Amino acid sequence: LETGAIESVRAILVDLHPADIATLIEGTPPESRPLVWTQVDDARKGETLLELAEDVRADLLRLTDDAALVAAARTLDTDDIADLIPELSDEVIAEILAALDKQNRQRLDAVLSYPEDTAGGLMNVDAITVRENITLEVVLRYLRRRGALPESTDKLFVVDRHDALIGQLEIGRLLTTDPDRRVSQVMDREVIRFPALAPQQDVAKAFEDYDLISAPVVDEHNRLIGRITIDDVVDVLREEAEHSILAPAGLSEDEDIFAPPLRTSRRRSVWLAVNLVTAIIAAAVVGLFESTIEKVVALAVMMPIVAGMGGNAGTQTVTAVIRGLALGIVSESNARRLLTRELAVGALNGLVFALAVGLIAVLWHKNLMLGPVIAMAMVINLTFAALFGVLIPVAVRRLGIDPALASGVILTTVTDVVGFFSFLGLATIFLV
Amino acid sequence: LETGAIESVRAILVDLHPADIATLIEGTPPESRPLVWTQVDDARKGETLLELAEDVRADLLRLTDDAALVAAARTLDTDDIADLIPELSDEVIAEILAALDKQNRQRLDAVLSYPEDTAGGLMNVDAITVRENITLEVVLRYLRRRGALPESTDKLFVVDRHDALIGQLEIGRLLTTDPDRRVSQVMDREVIRFPALAPQQDVAKAFEDYDLISAPVVDEHNRLIGRITIDDVVDVLREEAEHSILAPAGLSEDEDIFAPPLRTSRRRSVWLAVNLVTAIIAAAVVGLFESTIEKVVALAVMMPIVAGMGGNAGTQTVTAVIRGLALGIVSESNARRLLTRELAVGALNGLVFALAVGLIAVLWHKNLMLGPVIAMAMVINLTFAALFGVLIPVAVRRLGIDPALASGVILTTVTDVVGFFSFLGLATIFLV
Repeated sequence: LETGAIESVRAILVDLHPADIATLIEGTPPESRPLVWTQVDDARKGETLLELAEDVRADLLRLTDDAALVAAARTLDTDDIADLIPELSDEVIAEILAALDKQNRQRLDAVLSYPEDTAGGLMNVDAITVRENITLEVVLRYLRRRGALPESTDKLFVVDRHDALIGQLEIGRLLTTDPDRRVSQVMDREVIRFPALAPQQDVAKAFEDYDLISAPVVDEHNRLIGRITIDDVVDVLREEAEHSILAPAGLSEDEDIFAPPLRTSRRRSVWLAVNLVTAIIAAAVVGLFESTIEKVVALAVMMPIVAGMGGNAGTQTVTAVIRGLALGIVSESNARRLLTRELAVGALNGLVFALAVGLIAVLWHKNLMLGPVIAMAMVINLTFAALFGVLIPVAVRRLGIDPALASGVILTTVTDVVGFFSFLGLATIFLV
Repeated sequence: LETGAIESVRAILVDLHPADIATLIEGTPPESRPLVWTQVDDARKGETLLELAEDVRADLLRLTDDAALVAAARTLDTDDIADLIPELSDEVIAEILAALDKQNRQRLDAVLSYPEDTAGGLMNVDAITVRENITLEVVLRYLRRRGALPESTDKLFVVDRHDALIGQLEIGRLLTTDPDRRVSQVMDREVIRFPALAPQQDVAKAFEDYDLISAPVVDEHNRLIGRITIDDVVDVLREEAEHSILAPAGLSEDEDIFAPPLRTSRRRSVWLAVNLVTAIIAAAVVGLFESTIEKVVALAVMMPIVAGMGGNAGTQTVTAVIRGLALGIVSESNARRLLTRELAVGALNGLVFALAVGLIAVLWHKNLMLGPVIAMAMVINLTFAALFGVLIPVAVRRLGIDPALASGVILTTVTDVVGFFSFLGLATIFLV
């Protein structure tokens, strides 16, 4: 790239938000990324790093010298620094800590002491607290003296002298209530609060259901230790959504779409290997019926239809059940009822498509008995697809495994095996 | 259910948030829902209706008398009433309109005049506006007189006397700045604003990237007509996420998981029918090689492996590309480069699994030539899988069709056809 290009990269970057810079870098081939990265304004490097996919970030971190990393960290909130820490070298971490004042170092320690995917790992440590016995007038004066409010501050937290959370004061109330009243008269005592170890999924669900902008995080003694803000929750929701889309294909949201082919190929091959094993199991079932196929070759032509339709119908059930589990609509208490219902759907669609496929088979291969054989196999396979479509995600979840990751592979193994076995087995009985 | 049960349902419901009531109703079998619904507090019926899946809501609307619906609507914001309008009878709509005062009727009209999935359809009409030449002291007094602020009010909007948007005043600034200063001295003039017809996806992306809590909506003359709040954006993000998960299986997010089996079966059968057509196309390819299979039955055993592995590898590419397109990382400008990369990944994994599958084939079927034949077919199919894994979503999107909905079906058709054709074709040349 010539100097003219560098100039134009700089001109484009100067107006972009860190989120947009991150998208642009991820869409740039790896060999041109260092050039783009050097043109990013230092003040925006920290935020941009946070927005990048983990793989891309790791590459850029390697390209950035220690001094620049320390400077970038200085532009970030402590909770955001905490997200970067695991990827930084010990020297850089030491320098960042040295550059923080005592208060911020304590804050960073607080966030780092909780796992990343809990309320504690998600929290900011910039909550504004007030006491209940002061008047709103005093609160207003305090805020004015304090200066700019932290982002997404829609409420202040009311704590006692042991830092225990006793209420919240919404900014809207503060603005529209007679300033002579006391905090204790105006605050809400019912506060939606999160224990530090609450899983981030629960936090996200609560924010979504209760339309929260910010909410307090407390330790086991109900002491306020931080607050969670909606912008971090939106990121959690996005991550969860990406995970649900990518996991069934054995992909990860951390991946760089322009990573070197060898790296991508190695990662994807793990999932392909798992699928190869299941394909071999299905093929072994076909292998049991070699002599039947030798006599009626039409079976080889029609068998992918039986297996495939079972897989498709089962995927519909699995997808609906995984979503129901995630939303809390499906639980172990109504799973049995759902199973009855899905079995009815499977049997119904099994009958409809059994008729269609049976008719096609007879007309195509001019073999009258092939019709009833393939029709029966279709009903059996679509019913099994419904049965396992409900059982697999419920069972996988009970084992503590993510249903989105494992259910699809297990299901298609079942529908392939049942499809091949029922079709070729029935054919062996009635056609040979 | 006996009276005792009714009492306990009521006891459970009384403490629940509308979002939780909705989840509970969706997890209740349809025949028990009317009973639960009658026990829901009237003040929470409106919000609960909004939270329900469309199908479930339609059923409950049918069970609720007109007076109750009008009462429920009265508890909602105008933008939320607008969401319900399409599902209400003309009489109920007329009554709701009659019950609104003139200002709210005009507001409702404003929201209804834009499509549901645009900024205009998403907006609330409760924005607080101020003029630029007044002091903050006056703004504070005005707010206090006005009373409670609308939810998610993190900023006020500064308009001129033609209602044109000229700036925004953050509540945090208002609270922490000297009250003698004028709005014009304190407001931001650079405002992220949305034209009324901006697609809701763009709105959601901007809220996510710029960490917004609320943002103004303007008409074509830059006149402020409403504001969008983060809680509605979170709902859009959730909808989009659900769509991406459900669409590839031919499912819709409006569906009731406990719908009568006949209704579900009819809906799902459309997608199954499309898949049947593609399965028949693939079977027809196998049909071309009946005489080859008759001579070497091992081909029937191994052919699902070739087709299936191509489908799995292609699904990985398609999933990664759809995500890249949605996030804006992949565009037509870097699609060619991505294609080269995916082809390299496909060829690499093709070679690795060709060796593995070739070896397995030889050892299993004691047929030395079967090895190279299936290995070649694997390389061909995984390379085609990569090629079409990139091309299909890009092309489908250019046609204006949602890539998540159609790409998977088209891809597996390609990998089945290419897999069967290359494997059986090569076998016809080298094995027979």
